[in-house]
Amino acid sequence: MPIEPIRYVTKVDLTKPGDAQPQVHNRWHPDVPFTETITPGETVKIECLDWTGNQIGNNDTADDLRNVDLTRIHYLSGPFNIETAEPGDVLIVEIKDVQPLERQPWGYSGIFHKKNGGGFLDKFYPECAKAIFDFEGIHTTSRHIPHVKFTGLIHPGIMGTAPSQEILNEWNKREKFIKDECQHLHETSVANLPDELNAHGGSAEGDLLAKIAKEGSRTIPGRPENGGNCDIKNLSRGSKCYFPVYVPGAKFSIGDLHFSQGDGEISFCGAIEMAGVITIQTKVVKGGMKMLNLKSPLFIPGDVQNHYGPSRYLTFEGFSVDETGEQKFLDATVAYRQSCIRVIEYLRRFGYNDYQIYLLLSTAPIEGHMAGIVDVPNACTTIGVPMDIFDFDISPDKSMEILAAGGDITQDMGNCALVSNYDHPVVYEYNEGLMNGLNLK
Amino acid sequence: MPIEPIRYVTKVDLTKPGDAQPQVHNRWHPDVPFTETITPGETVKIECLDWTGNQIGNNDTADDLRNVDLTRIHYLSGPFNIETAEPGDVLIVEIKDVQPLERQPWGYSGIFHKKNGGGFLDKFYPECAKAIFDFEGIHTTSRHIPHVKFTGLIHPGIMGTAPSQEILNEWNKREKFIKDECQHLHETSVANLPDELNAHGGSAEGDLLAKIAKEGSRTIPGRPENGGNCDIKNLSRGSKCYFPVYVPGAKFSIGDLHFSQGDGEISFCGAIEMAGVITIQTKVVKGGMKMLNLKSPLFIPGDVQNHYGPSRYLTFEGFSVDETGEQKFLDATVAYRQSCIRVIEYLRRFGYNDYQIYLLLSTAPIEGHMAGIVDVPNACTTIGVPMDIFDFDISPDKSMEILAAGGDITQDMGNCALVSNYDHPVVYEYNEGLMNGLNLK
Amino acid sequence: MPIEPIRYVTKVDLTKPGDAQPQVHNRWHPDVPFTETITPGETVKIECLDWTGNQIGNNDTADDLRNVDLTRIHYLSGPFNIETAEPGDVLIVEIKDVQPLERQPWGYSGIFHKKNGGGFLDKFYPECAKAIFDFEGIHTTSRHIPHVKFTGLIHPGIMGTAPSQEILNEWNKREKFIKDECQHLHETSVANLPDELNAHGGSAEGDLLAKIAKEGSRTIPGRPENGGNCDIKNLSRGSKCYFPVYVPGAKFSIGDLHFSQGDGEISFCGAIEMAGVITIQTKVVKGGMKMLNLKSPLFIPGDVQNHYGPSRYLTFEGFSVDETGEQKFLDATVAYRQSCIRVIEYLRRFGYNDYQIYLLLSTAPIEGHMAGIVDVPNACTTIGVPMDIFDFDISPDKSMEILAAGGDITQDMGNCALVSNYDHPVVYEYNEGLMNGLNLK
Amino acid sequence: MPIEPIRYVTKVDLTKPGDAQPQVHNRWHPDVPFTETITPGETVKIECLDWTGNQIGNNDTADDLRNVDLTRIHYLSGPFNIETAEPGDVLIVEIKDVQPLERQPWGYSGIFHKKNGGGFLDKFYPECAKAIFDFEGIHTTSRHIPHVKFTGLIHPGIMGTAPSQEILNEWNKREKFIKDECQHLHETSVANLPDELNAHGGSAEGDLLAKIAKEGSRTIPGRPENGGNCDIKNLSRGSKCYFPVYVPGAKFSIGDLHFSQGDGEISFCGAIEMAGVITIQTKVVKGGMKMLNLKSPLFIPGDVQNHYGPSRYLTFEGFSVDETGEQKFLDATVAYRQSCIRVIEYLRRFGYNDYQIYLLLSTAPIEGHMAGIVDVPNACTTIGVPMDIFDFDISPDKSMEILAAGGDITQDMGNCALVSNYDHPVVYEYNEGLMNGLNLK
Repeated sequence: MPIEPIRYVTKVDLTKPGDAQPQVHNRWHPDVPFTETITPGETVKIECLDWTGNQIGNNDTADDLRNVDLTRIHYLSGPFNIETAEPGDVLIVEIKDVQPLERQPWGYSGIFHKKNGGGFLDKFYPECAKAIFDFEGIHTTSRHIPHVKFTGLIHPGIMGTAPSQEILNEWNKREKFIKDECQHLHETSVANLPDELNAHGGSAEGDLLAKIAKEGSRTIPGRPENGGNCDIKNLSRGSKCYFPVYVPGAKFSIGDLHFSQGDGEISFCGAIEMAGVITIQTKVVKGGMKMLNLKSPLFIPGDVQNHYGPSRYLTFEGFSVDETGEQKFLDATVAYRQSCIRVIEYLRRFGYNDYQIYLLLSTAPIEGHMAGIVDVPNACTTIGVPMDIFDFDISPDKSMEILAAGGDITQDMGNCALVSNYDHPVVYEYNEGLMNGLNLK
Repeated sequence: MPIEPIRYVTKVDLTKPGDAQPQVHNRWHPDVPFTETITPGETVKIECLDWTGNQIGNNDTADDLRNVDLTRIHYLSGPFNIETAEPGDVLIVEIKDVQPLERQPWGYSGIFHKKNGGGFLDKFYPECAKAIFDFEGIHTTSRHIPHVKFTGLIHPGIMGTAPSQEILNEWNKREKFIKDECQHLHETSVANLPDELNAHGGSAEGDLLAKIAKEGSRTIPGRPENGGNCDIKNLSRGSKCYFPVYVPGAKFSIGDLHFSQGDGEISFCGAIEMAGVITIQTKVVKGGMKMLNLKSPLFIPGDVQNHYGPSRYLTFEGFSVDETGEQKFLDATVAYRQSCIRVIEYLRRFGYNDYQIYLLLSTAPIEGHMAGIVDVPNACTTIGVPMDIFDFDISPDKSMEILAAGGDITQDMGNCALVSNYDHPVVYEYNEGLMNGLNLK
Repeated sequence: MPIEPIRYVTKVDLTKPGDAQPQVHNRWHPDVPFTETITPGETVKIECLDWTGNQIGNNDTADDLRNVDLTRIHYLSGPFNIETAEPGDVLIVEIKDVQPLERQPWGYSGIFHKKNGGGFLDKFYPECAKAIFDFEGIHTTSRHIPHVKFTGLIHPGIMGTAPSQEILNEWNKREKFIKDECQHLHETSVANLPDELNAHGGSAEGDLLAKIAKEGSRTIPGRPENGGNCDIKNLSRGSKCYFPVYVPGAKFSIGDLHFSQGDGEISFCGAIEMAGVITIQTKVVKGGMKMLNLKSPLFIPGDVQNHYGPSRYLTFEGFSVDETGEQKFLDATVAYRQSCIRVIEYLRRFGYNDYQIYLLLSTAPIEGHMAGIVDVPNACTTIGVPMDIFDFDISPDKSMEILAAGGDITQDMGNCALVSNYDHPVVYEYNEGLMNGLNLK
Repeated sequence: MPIEPIRYVTKVDLTKPGDAQPQVHNRWHPDVPFTETITPGETVKIECLDWTGNQIGNNDTADDLRNVDLTRIHYLSGPFNIETAEPGDVLIVEIKDVQPLERQPWGYSGIFHKKNGGGFLDKFYPECAKAIFDFEGIHTTSRHIPHVKFTGLIHPGIMGTAPSQEILNEWNKREKFIKDECQHLHETSVANLPDELNAHGGSAEGDLLAKIAKEGSRTIPGRPENGGNCDIKNLSRGSKCYFPVYVPGAKFSIGDLHFSQGDGEISFCGAIEMAGVITIQTKVVKGGMKMLNLKSPLFIPGDVQNHYGPSRYLTFEGFSVDETGEQKFLDATVAYRQSCIRVIEYLRRFGYNDYQIYLLLSTAPIEGHMAGIVDVPNACTTIGVPMDIFDFDISPDKSMEILAAGGDITQDMGNCALVSNYDHPVVYEYNEGLMNGLNLK
């Protein structure tokens, strides 16, 4: 009694741009046509392009990253028609597996230029950088960040049901509000409104495509109503996710697969981005939204996350006093940036440059926690760096033992990929005032 | 060859207020006199008062909490003279154990009134509430939050070395800045500047006490330079902490013991506050600050944290769109508040009122993670609630199974302690708009 | 810069018997010809047949199992020529991944007939039984053991370097010794000596094949010198294994892939047996055996094992008093069998029959520990059953709550696959004496 | 509303021998008088003597161990009258905490002389040895085994309900059987039958004491009916245990506290033995034995075990071929002994002598697993040694890196406590044959 292999509901082509492939799309809109139908209970496989739709190559410069076209993201597989799903239902999606494609065993992490995407630390690191990661089964290593190896906590950056037209309108309205309100305060884009340029509505054509292009919300932010680009590293293999359904058939889309990511996805293109295949099983619960009082997706992670003991995390504190010494009020975003800076200051002692560490923070399974969010005026956050991903001992005790004995802890760490003929520093001089008990601001 | 019990360097009196006890103090200042001397390598025990210095009782009203005097916090044991420690050194403190006092096997968690301390959700829950927790070995339960039991991830909320005078000045300057800048925008205090009222400088008297009272920084915020009130739940038993030293003898202080706390310490007095005893061992590394490039404390957690598998966390997403539907820009603080609201909406279905859940979020070992901090304009954070702390099944599957069969998932959950003759709602009506795909703002 | 997919050094054919495929072999012998050469540092993929070489089908009877030919096992891929490896070296094999074949997403677990292989509990369960397991990504379920789902801790049952001729002779000598010594005491085979019938020496022919067939040790037992069929469930993805090298090129072989197995592999064909593909990377350390004082393989597991918290294991004790009440002396084997019986008695209350539970013990990730091995005359062992693999609550508290309220905990659990027209009990009546405080022996 | 400290139901005196203290006893018998009554639901504290009743001192010789009197063990606190418990009920005991006594912060592990107790490896290590362990909060270190520190997985070695007279008779009968059957084959005692010498029946006197002394089963072995000396390291803090009840009031006894133990308790007095205090809470379920089909104790561990990630265990395999090269049949006891030998051979390279490693195997939280118990004729077991307990890197990679570079991995490891003027080797020369591929037997 032979049984069949699991059915593929999407295949992708790694040699063509995303917008040439009708089984993917790059805007959220209730009218993007269904690609395939999935019966609840059935297990299916879905191939996904990398988020840029094959724009980035396996090479040693960041030139392609410098020129990446951000109107052409993210290419999502679907939307799928989940049989029986109706508005008000809950769609349960169990992630049975996520894997790179056997035909492309590598991925990349990028730091975008401050003028084209930017990232969490773009104030200090405005230039482009890239690291290529090779996949060897569950492990990955990068020639651009030596002496590091880790297991992928592999996951989709984006999953979501389609918004209703009402929700879509709300999204566009509130994001326009923030754009209007504070774009002038920022050098990078604070929100990406609907953009007809390169909008890809899957198989939609003509007027339908025009409508999708005009109204379709961008895929960049995650949003409370459907999850979307939530970039939660723990939404990995074995996770069981509960989505609100807003349109008939649910119109579930998925993509932006990550081989690994640190909490926060620090550098924006910060996960190890890859093409891959995800295996899911769905279930529909009629009227489930009201039963669960469900306004945002919920999930229960799987039981096979990277598993380092708690005592293997070197943990850095960050507070909402920024790098110039200016006090912020309970600002966890500032605190988390400070936690990142503390990691950079620590790891650069071993010979890594700041861009390499920035990429490492973005890709390795670092744990970013809220610690205290109530002790006015300081929020406190922590970053736990798993010491076991390094092939040398990064512990403070070892560093101090070597240095106290007159030794050297610096190694030749090479470099990450930068743009051709780059001419900018790769280390940022943070204010040294704090170390002397004095802010020099 | 009998060996001696471990030496106590501090004992406290649970029947007297904190300011009547010279072995504790409640301001940060380099001139607070040493209490005891500790030799590096020696293991010592330190008793600590609860943070309020015995202001709160084991009873069923929140009246004492309503009247808590916030000029009289936190009472810290020490400062200790760590032999050989000099500015520029690193002080290593290994937390060998933390325990409640055998003579007081209970603690409390409180929601402060919005006008007197407030908390992370005071916009919705401005009133006072309290829960008493009984300690039975490693476990705790509360008569005020039934059907919940968990193991304490017991830790000190505050540890730190004394600031130098220069650092102290910097603290006061930058906190005055934020006070000046934005106090007018908030109903609660945005920062607590030095306050002579009830300042307690340990054994300091006369001019010395006057100087400490006048200049001493408050203990409420954690600060990057010395850690202080960082409220990191994972800084628990077995942790090895690395502190910068700014003054001769390090002047290490410790206190604010917590039997358990959730990430963020949501309700400000949110951990399970207790008197207790902490056992530590110290080490000094000469010139360690430069060796580690150390600007804020580092730590490595111990190997005995509460250990639920990853698949036992029901995980809630939050985004930086606030409860009115207003879009915020990459604001992790707002996102985390939304994650809290999602938990409240979910758990209240079982019969808990919002104040009970607020207290539960504050005390139980919930995991609060940064997820994505770069997907403009939305930050995304998650809260993982360990399902094993409940004695009933809170999973979505079980809820939906019962409800779909026409059953009821509500139980009688009693109530938390509130003020006498209280007359205010204990459930907040969040905008239901999102659920219908429509923000009603 | 495209990079190539990972090289396959073995492919297998699922439609032909193992002995028709020269890239596999089923005897240990130093003269089995190399199949392929692997360069240290290279990552390669190796397909493997299931251990029986396609003898077992995906169906609902155990007839094929009843007739399984045990001279035709295990079909191992290789042996591989690891470049530079010489006797005295250590061969490091890092398991980068193990997966089922996409073209055959299922496996099986079998209880062999007592007269043809038997198993750990064949005294009570002498008949055949089988369960088919479907693979859906990381998860597996079986139509023959309902209400159970778990993540595969996927691993090779067999890995090993080839023995030298001297070691081979030693193996044959010592196994003949035990055969001579105690076969007469047992109904099942106590050892399988070299057997020319169906010996498969890979590409060997003529005299070489005859020599291999005559002398080649069977693959059934693991052995201290090379590991072999050690059936260690934790030798899973990410494991780094250290093997002694006895012959030039190491002649490393691998196979007997398991999707999952409980500690002990209770029913002999007890793991979830499957065809699959394993990805490995090798390294050779010259003279490593002496450096490590290495006499048996060592390993360090990977960081992604199934991860249930410790409090999710319902744990059963077993002692070396056998099921008739007879006292044995520090016999951990007897104690472990008693632990198994305790699980069977417990789980059968829910409606499973004993053969189903026997299969479950064999396949699910149960933890089997030595507890005490010194308290004369009783050895004590434990079995921890992960409660999270069941979709209902198996805890004692829940059982007693339901039963005390007059409810029923029994469900319809169907049946495992048995032989056609079977006519034997599927529940064994253990001596009830112990329960009454009285051994009836 | 002050609440009382937790009630002590037993206090012990560390200055008097166990048999001078009526609140403890050292034989199992249904007629040992109750000490105290415990109400189900009440949390109580129970002090316990170390198992020898103060026979062993904190010093640097093993002389006291050489002369230990094994008729005077184990001193158990109780038996307690658990209100409402009747035969057929289940007694649930939740271990709320276990701690050393503050007044005696140390324990010991001993290797008994082969002629007086022996141990698992007494064939090779017949002499006495001892290690004193200092307790510093959750950690322990030993001056006799340097460079090692670990967290205690603290637990009672013995817990149990009293046997009925029928069960008692059965115990004595079956243990006499093994004594008669195989004592002549062994140099050490294979079973300890009732022994009137030094029998201590708590407060029993006269005829009652005489009856207890004559009939009372020894406490050395664990037994299936009541658990007893099961020595399960995971039965630690937070565990919930289910015991059969055989006599009115249950007559629950407890003792033999261990600060830490490795799986198997290799050296018999192998755990870190200590006096201490255990906090428990009880519950009685009427008729529970039948509900659970309960013949031996069950338990669910707590959620705070030592938590090293899986990849931190260096794992050693052992097979049932003994150290002379003789083949045994599926003998897990032999296999486990071989696993121990592999650890000794590995760790002695660093400078530890065999007795030190034997003590380390007994005390540190090593994981001993059944691996395969069905691959005739070889059982396979594993021992996982947590690498994080050493303050140097014991990994094979590091050893080989240093040695390949011409370095030395040996350190001065001092010695464990031995008898005065000892004159015997502390390293055993195992047959080197296996390493050369040749058994020299």
